[in-house]
Amino acid sequence: MNLFDAITHAMATVSSGGYATDDRSMGRFGNGMLWISVVFMLLGGMPFVLYIRFFANPSLKVLRDDQVIGFLLIVAALTLILTLDLIGEGVFGPFDALTHAAFNVTSVITTTGFASTDYTLWSGFSVALFFFITFIGGCSGSTSGGMKIFRFQLSYLFLTKQIRQLVHPRGLFSIRYNGTEVSDDIISSAVAFSFLFFVCLVVTTLLLSLTGLDLITSLTGAATALTNVGPGLGEIIGPAGNFATLTDSAKWILCFAMLLGRLELLSLIVIFTPVFWRG
Amino acid sequence: MNLFDAITHAMATVSSGGYATDDRSMGRFGNGMLWISVVFMLLGGMPFVLYIRFFANPSLKVLRDDQVIGFLLIVAALTLILTLDLIGEGVFGPFDALTHAAFNVTSVITTTGFASTDYTLWSGFSVALFFFITFIGGCSGSTSGGMKIFRFQLSYLFLTKQIRQLVHPRGLFSIRYNGTEVSDDIISSAVAFSFLFFVCLVVTTLLLSLTGLDLITSLTGAATALTNVGPGLGEIIGPAGNFATLTDSAKWILCFAMLLGRLELLSLIVIFTPVFWRG
Repeated sequence: MNLFDAITHAMATVSSGGYATDDRSMGRFGNGMLWISVVFMLLGGMPFVLYIRFFANPSLKVLRDDQVIGFLLIVAALTLILTLDLIGEGVFGPFDALTHAAFNVTSVITTTGFASTDYTLWSGFSVALFFFITFIGGCSGSTSGGMKIFRFQLSYLFLTKQIRQLVHPRGLFSIRYNGTEVSDDIISSAVAFSFLFFVCLVVTTLLLSLTGLDLITSLTGAATALTNVGPGLGEIIGPAGNFATLTDSAKWILCFAMLLGRLELLSLIVIFTPVFWRG
Repeated sequence: MNLFDAITHAMATVSSGGYATDDRSMGRFGNGMLWISVVFMLLGGMPFVLYIRFFANPSLKVLRDDQVIGFLLIVAALTLILTLDLIGEGVFGPFDALTHAAFNVTSVITTTGFASTDYTLWSGFSVALFFFITFIGGCSGSTSGGMKIFRFQLSYLFLTKQIRQLVHPRGLFSIRYNGTEVSDDIISSAVAFSFLFFVCLVVTTLLLSLTGLDLITSLTGAATALTNVGPGLGEIIGPAGNFATLTDSAKWILCFAMLLGRLELLSLIVIFTPVFWRG
């Protein structure tokens, strides 16, 4: 890798940007380069406040954060499942399968958007898996977009609490996250965000379909714009394609969706409500 | 229509079943027949307890229910939008466009599953629209499945409350539905249901994709099974296709998903949790 490639890829990796200097994205680099990228994409996907705390007080205890642990476990689990699928389908040998699975899962989940190869050609399962990974996103307070790990964790904790409540209707249960009890306000704002996210996804998809795009392109285009990932699925905007052939109106819709996603929806949506202007 | 067809279609309409006596579904009948179907599918999609109340006290006030009003408004709005798209795309003349839009929107939203023609050939917009309508479902307490109108209404009310709270952080806001204040318990169970629904959708889609199906077939197959609609999208399980060519394992997965959806998830899922067996 020459100096220019090294600098540009380094910046695009840690910032979850995902711009490569070549149409093949990271596909022209070897396994070693891909693993280095994985490490720095993961670091870019973690809460930056933890690094400040770590440098002020360098002990591993600081990094024992529920969101970071959940994030790393999810990446590891998804990589493992995909690796097994790739080996089972005979796409790669074991080590290549692990490398490409780790790299592309990390790239999509951290919303970086690099690709080492066209993962939509691997198998039907890999396409479906990447479709869902698009939504997840990294940790809050990181450079990555998406719905964010802590919202899924809170939703999961909330669901287990509701199931317990169903079995023990008179029991009192609380939700604990990172060692402290989670207030109803935090759950409420996570719920409001998730509902709003799906509303934005539906509206963006319908608008894109009106510009003449098929369902897969509209749906994954909307998802990848709102989560700031980059590549969508399908022949046009998949990891081997790009957004160049889309109409201008489709590009304007995607611009707005990208801003909406990057600003975490509510802060932008609130400007369009009457209650904001009434004061 | 002969007597046999009349009886079978009548039963399949009010029960939101959707079985026709012919591979063309309701496609071989005229506009008049379709409009009669629309009326009875809508009646099947409303809460049955309202009919009992109406016969005990026959006044229109009884029918002034937030869920019923919302349901009818959503059907009317979707029909109107789709009619305009069909006229704009030149698929039908105005009256045929209205008939086919009303019939197929009502059929999918009430989870009946009849089709008057292959609506996936109309336009990219119609495909995307039917994809999202699949999830909505009718009113709670009706014969229809899906996520149900009241959950969307509660989510919407909850979101507007959160936005108001964002603008006035020290304000006190409550959610009113059908004239009474909605308790946190009801909101919580609607939230838990929605989260669980999407978890089931993701798992079912991934399992279906492992049987060799493409993303559209897996995703819409999972959605149409969980919501008990019937037809999915794509060439295999779209309104002009059927599930016959799917593998046995795909059919077993869909069987379980249909049961899960029909039993409203939580009542079936709770059996698989340790907390249920510990007592």
